[in-house]
Amino acid sequence: MNQLLVQQFLRQALIEDIGMHDLTTELIFAEDAQTHGVLRAKEAGRIAGLPIIKEAFQLLDPLVQVQLCVSEGEDVNAGTVLAKVFGKTRALLSAERVTLNLLQRMSGIATQTHRWCERIKEYPTQIVDTRKTLPGLRMFDKYAVTVGGGRNHRFGLYDAVLIKDNHIAALGSITAAVQRVKERVSPFVKIEVEAETLEQVAEAASLSVDVILLDNMTPEQVEAAVRLVDRRALTEASGGMTLQSVLFYAKAGVDLISAGFLTHSVQALDISLDLFA
Amino acid sequence: MNQLLVQQFLRQALIEDIGMHDLTTELIFAEDAQTHGVLRAKEAGRIAGLPIIKEAFQLLDPLVQVQLCVSEGEDVNAGTVLAKVFGKTRALLSAERVTLNLLQRMSGIATQTHRWCERIKEYPTQIVDTRKTLPGLRMFDKYAVTVGGGRNHRFGLYDAVLIKDNHIAALGSITAAVQRVKERVSPFVKIEVEAETLEQVAEAASLSVDVILLDNMTPEQVEAAVRLVDRRALTEASGGMTLQSVLFYAKAGVDLISAGFLTHSVQALDISLDLFA
Amino acid sequence: MNQLLVQQFLRQALIEDIGMHDLTTELIFAEDAQTHGVLRAKEAGRIAGLPIIKEAFQLLDPLVQVQLCVSEGEDVNAGTVLAKVFGKTRALLSAERVTLNLLQRMSGIATQTHRWCERIKEYPTQIVDTRKTLPGLRMFDKYAVTVGGGRNHRFGLYDAVLIKDNHIAALGSITAAVQRVKERVSPFVKIEVEAETLEQVAEAASLSVDVILLDNMTPEQVEAAVRLVDRRALTEASGGMTLQSVLFYAKAGVDLISAGFLTHSVQALDISLDLFA
Amino acid sequence: MNQLLVQQFLRQALIEDIGMHDLTTELIFAEDAQTHGVLRAKEAGRIAGLPIIKEAFQLLDPLVQVQLCVSEGEDVNAGTVLAKVFGKTRALLSAERVTLNLLQRMSGIATQTHRWCERIKEYPTQIVDTRKTLPGLRMFDKYAVTVGGGRNHRFGLYDAVLIKDNHIAALGSITAAVQRVKERVSPFVKIEVEAETLEQVAEAASLSVDVILLDNMTPEQVEAAVRLVDRRALTEASGGMTLQSVLFYAKAGVDLISAGFLTHSVQALDISLDLFA
Amino acid sequence: MNQLLVQQFLRQALIEDIGMHDLTTELIFAEDAQTHGVLRAKEAGRIAGLPIIKEAFQLLDPLVQVQLCVSEGEDVNAGTVLAKVFGKTRALLSAERVTLNLLQRMSGIATQTHRWCERIKEYPTQIVDTRKTLPGLRMFDKYAVTVGGGRNHRFGLYDAVLIKDNHIAALGSITAAVQRVKERVSPFVKIEVEAETLEQVAEAASLSVDVILLDNMTPEQVEAAVRLVDRRALTEASGGMTLQSVLFYAKAGVDLISAGFLTHSVQALDISLDLFA
Amino acid sequence: MNQLLVQQFLRQALIEDIGMHDLTTELIFAEDAQTHGVLRAKEAGRIAGLPIIKEAFQLLDPLVQVQLCVSEGEDVNAGTVLAKVFGKTRALLSAERVTLNLLQRMSGIATQTHRWCERIKEYPTQIVDTRKTLPGLRMFDKYAVTVGGGRNHRFGLYDAVLIKDNHIAALGSITAAVQRVKERVSPFVKIEVEAETLEQVAEAASLSVDVILLDNMTPEQVEAAVRLVDRRALTEASGGMTLQSVLFYAKAGVDLISAGFLTHSVQALDISLDLFA
Repeated sequence: MNQLLVQQFLRQALIEDIGMHDLTTELIFAEDAQTHGVLRAKEAGRIAGLPIIKEAFQLLDPLVQVQLCVSEGEDVNAGTVLAKVFGKTRALLSAERVTLNLLQRMSGIATQTHRWCERIKEYPTQIVDTRKTLPGLRMFDKYAVTVGGGRNHRFGLYDAVLIKDNHIAALGSITAAVQRVKERVSPFVKIEVEAETLEQVAEAASLSVDVILLDNMTPEQVEAAVRLVDRRALTEASGGMTLQSVLFYAKAGVDLISAGFLTHSVQALDISLDLFA
Repeated sequence: MNQLLVQQFLRQALIEDIGMHDLTTELIFAEDAQTHGVLRAKEAGRIAGLPIIKEAFQLLDPLVQVQLCVSEGEDVNAGTVLAKVFGKTRALLSAERVTLNLLQRMSGIATQTHRWCERIKEYPTQIVDTRKTLPGLRMFDKYAVTVGGGRNHRFGLYDAVLIKDNHIAALGSITAAVQRVKERVSPFVKIEVEAETLEQVAEAASLSVDVILLDNMTPEQVEAAVRLVDRRALTEASGGMTLQSVLFYAKAGVDLISAGFLTHSVQALDISLDLFA
Repeated sequence: MNQLLVQQFLRQALIEDIGMHDLTTELIFAEDAQTHGVLRAKEAGRIAGLPIIKEAFQLLDPLVQVQLCVSEGEDVNAGTVLAKVFGKTRALLSAERVTLNLLQRMSGIATQTHRWCERIKEYPTQIVDTRKTLPGLRMFDKYAVTVGGGRNHRFGLYDAVLIKDNHIAALGSITAAVQRVKERVSPFVKIEVEAETLEQVAEAASLSVDVILLDNMTPEQVEAAVRLVDRRALTEASGGMTLQSVLFYAKAGVDLISAGFLTHSVQALDISLDLFA
Repeated sequence: MNQLLVQQFLRQALIEDIGMHDLTTELIFAEDAQTHGVLRAKEAGRIAGLPIIKEAFQLLDPLVQVQLCVSEGEDVNAGTVLAKVFGKTRALLSAERVTLNLLQRMSGIATQTHRWCERIKEYPTQIVDTRKTLPGLRMFDKYAVTVGGGRNHRFGLYDAVLIKDNHIAALGSITAAVQRVKERVSPFVKIEVEAETLEQVAEAASLSVDVILLDNMTPEQVEAAVRLVDRRALTEASGGMTLQSVLFYAKAGVDLISAGFLTHSVQALDISLDLFA
Repeated sequence: MNQLLVQQFLRQALIEDIGMHDLTTELIFAEDAQTHGVLRAKEAGRIAGLPIIKEAFQLLDPLVQVQLCVSEGEDVNAGTVLAKVFGKTRALLSAERVTLNLLQRMSGIATQTHRWCERIKEYPTQIVDTRKTLPGLRMFDKYAVTVGGGRNHRFGLYDAVLIKDNHIAALGSITAAVQRVKERVSPFVKIEVEAETLEQVAEAASLSVDVILLDNMTPEQVEAAVRLVDRRALTEASGGMTLQSVLFYAKAGVDLISAGFLTHSVQALDISLDLFA
Repeated sequence: MNQLLVQQFLRQALIEDIGMHDLTTELIFAEDAQTHGVLRAKEAGRIAGLPIIKEAFQLLDPLVQVQLCVSEGEDVNAGTVLAKVFGKTRALLSAERVTLNLLQRMSGIATQTHRWCERIKEYPTQIVDTRKTLPGLRMFDKYAVTVGGGRNHRFGLYDAVLIKDNHIAALGSITAAVQRVKERVSPFVKIEVEAETLEQVAEAASLSVDVILLDNMTPEQVEAAVRLVDRRALTEASGGMTLQSVLFYAKAGVDLISAGFLTHSVQALDISLDLFA
């Protein structure tokens, strides 16, 4: 992650939460009071976002000390101490909620992604994310997916071509759409085409594209599609994936399985900060 | 919601997704191509965020037409058309994902909140949110809670005092902490105190505070606490609430039940945009 | 005050004053020249804003040394040294004006507020500010009021309800307006109602609101209103308050007196920075 | 004034005041309710800032109608209607305070400046402002001075050279400082030198500078200085000017009189917005 | 190009040039004065950036009319009218310089790129740009290259992998570096490897990468490299390319030729705006 | 240059180039890997922008060490080491391109300006820049001109008056335009008037303006104009200047020669960063 963006994001997040002042903490604690605290996982899962911790507390106390006790991407049990912090009491209290909110989401995403990856670990198929991330959080969401063992799909509308049904309809055929794109597109950008039928799969496979998106197909259809493509492009299965169904798609030999669920409906991992006043 | 903040947020969200260009759409569609489309709920739930739709599309096409087909906060079935849109094809395609990502989260929050409110509808108890919202999304998350029938807890560290264990420990007692706060705090700010035992509840209730937070108590303890407080302050039950347990707390007579779950682990409501190229 | 907002504000203020370069200072002084200086009050008053000094100079010279010689909120005589600074000459000269402009305003507000508080110190009545602050300066203006011994009214339209004449007229009565608000408003927000007649005072007092604003009443009317309210809500007197009239309102037993004058027409306290080249 | 900066400023000012929502107004008024209102001077003075009104309300209601009833810079009596507005009730209520806060300050500055100009109107001497403006408000403050009949001194450290005591001390003499500056400075920038004694005045006058600042001199000293300079540069009197003393300086024949008082201690002009619900 | 970024960029550019006011124009022209004008090429070249014109003038006059007389990417002669504008005189004068500065650079880039493409038009080789663009201008520079007939290399460090000498040295070999990358990288990102010798070319070609960068090779070496690669990857020649040398590289059969010169040393195309007061 | 603006600019430039992550470098190098490197001129020229180097690398590695080996404004040969750097490998690689892009442009401008100044060094005439700089880069472009030995023309529309043909036409004559301006303009702002004929030169010279712009005149016309002006104002020759023609204008006795070429068509100076992995 770009640390300049991380800092900018955390600065805005702290301003959103603190506003003009942390009323309670400024009234109770002296400006120079210091304390130490412990970040602890309250349930088992995979931890993502540890570098966030220091960045967040440092914005309010440049001299804060943060000692990490686990590694990024480590699978921990309930009760595991993730990090120890020491610094200004006001800084720790005022930045607590923002830090936890982000860390819990990122760890929730990593934990869930890891679960999906484990489920299909006997197959070469990879789990990829989607653009179904929350506004402002894409960098964090997509990073957390990689910590969980998944791979990233495109980051936005700018870094890969994805020719969907609307684009195909507009030009009349997959072939016409791919040709139009190839006339102008950067040679450093991958091209993916969405196919809804085996006929479309066959058409796309003949056009030297990089990835073929198999949209809302059954595992059986996917298996047929993979055979049709025959390594001429990567194949991606997409549409309503669940932790249950994913195994059948992996068995069908698809290269990539994309799942919006990983980021659009995140179960936060419970993490707490205990301070010792 | 402050429309200036809504516009600013959507502008940033669109920039995050589109980056320097929407590669595919700019290569396929002419700048002046127009189309119409339909926003549809793909599962049943309560809709929140309808005003977002027009604001988002308008940023890319000032002349876009958006016709809402349901009301904000309406409970809809799967398949219900939420809105019809007509405008530049490029604008509709480029803004689709951002609009849906936000609308799905807000409707997910409203749907879940509504479910909790329904569960306790025979009691005067109210469901309130927490500060466990995602960075940058607090305004949207908290607004969605109200659409779902819940009420807002404080928006940040700036608009209400919440004296917690650390603050109490620092000054030695709830009484000392409350006194310190009252010496300086604005008369336009409410004061809440966290109590972990019935002794603390009794102490807090004697101090003319506005709300007493009953932290991680059983329904039985809450019932005792409510009796102790005897209307001298509002009471709020908090800690690990679920759709199951909430009924017992309502029965215990508490005024407010706060639930981080409503915003920290949101299940997005499935909504799609179908375009007719 | 939120130090992140303080830094952001000072950064913008310095950019406003310095623009692309401090023409004179860059032409005269070498980049590494250093000097020391003294901040001095040139007239008697109460000092507010001392933490600003270090933040401002640090933005241009991270190694600047600032030694405060008085305490925040201290009442000083003309000639008192407030702080000693040592750092890069260019930094001290380029940040001088911005630092003084802000410090002089804040100390002017604190001095004036203190004068008003002293005037009524034999009464429990408190002086509160208003939203008549200058755009961009609300945090500083309201903080300075507390340094002067006053209390803060709401910070903006977002952190308290104030039902005014227009709102009442729209719904037909104070009772209707209060009911409408109570159906939806957060239980963590205080509700104030404006009353222009004793009838309205009586109506408002019966509705369990937090504060009743007695708008443009004479001290005699205020006294009657306070009797009517009889502790069921706080009372606030407002409208054209002066250092002279405030005593009569305090005597009338009102809880709060709000004065726009404290922030809309500030007399800056004269403070200088003397550098020793 | 640069309208892009005006819009940006008002946008931030409205966000500061409204925050995440205008609690009261959103609860009381429907989104599409409309009303009209009247801006009125409640005391006599010179009006500055009329273009602000439309810009501010438009940010919240693009279709708002604003009809100006006086001209920018007009001298009005108490009770004069300045403008009529018609638009969304929510927009008018939510933008009211910000608009008035700015308009009252600008009109206060114009009124006071006009008073000073009137005082010396029989002399060719001009009143100029200083950099003693409030952070973020320089554009508005300096514009208001011109509406009041004054002229602007430099806008910041970037658009004119002002060689002060520290700069002179660093290089040993006025002559050395001016030479250093002339070796490098843009030919499109004016050079002013501060002189504290008649010897310094004589030295400065011999160096082809544009303006000589006569710092803290009596009217008699200023008269002598003006004779010494003999039209070789403009002369500026500065230091503790008051509405009383300014006449003596004008009589002394100085070209410019600068007064920090015009902007550092502004008496707001009382203006109100009456809405007809 | 993302129009939201275009607007944001132009807004900042106008603020940079106008500052607090356009001194001359505000003093001379009335706020409502209108005029028309003509944008004209003063030398022959390929025009890029026409959509900028309307966006820039609209920021200062929302009702401005802009009539384009040529198409984006058209090759024009000296004297050709590019567009006619009609709107507020102040807006046209204040936005003139910013508009021309950007239009002249973009057209300069397009003209030069077109010249390079023409030079090798008998070969399938494509001209691509680099990251040697000016800070803040990348979107405009890279867009202009495509208008000139070139293709874009990666937009930044985020949208393609380019393994250079430092990366290879760190892991010991091209093979090790490519393997490390493939273990983690998104399947939607292309991988390019820099090769300085034919041995490295052979190694890279065996690793299923997307592009091989032939760094600072002679046309003869490139020809040998292209044979070695044998269509297993795209080949890119890079290093000190000129309009003269590019033909030899195209003849050598390389797929892509990248040239920093196109954007790091741009010759602006002379364009003027003539206003008819 | 204002260091706050430099930092802000570099921060945005790095974000533009790095985006959400430096894909290659993050995959290859450990977060704590360190290395050293050398900045070297690859061609002869005058170096401008050295202070940028440390600021840029520091944003990504606050502990980076930068040792400058030449002075700002020094004329170096090809191969000269400009600076040595030591710090985090990731920081050096990720900031390399942005640093070089800016340094190469600034040095290119300084080199070219110096060449022009040398060309006319036997005359007192000065080379000045124009507003033909790239959006966002004005501060850097104009600073580089001064490093090259040139002087700055006005920085924008805000810091000097320049009365051009359109302004003159609007008011009917140069005399009318100058009078209008003088009635209102700040006495701290210089006034320049554009003259296209000797009649206009004579008219302008009689009006006590600061500079007269001789627009598109031949050296012979300029010589006549200079004689006409006779030191009553500075004279500036402008329009299509080249390194060849500039000598004739200097001989003609003009005070200033302005050249858009210096900044609108910059030849970057080749500079490289060699890292030792």
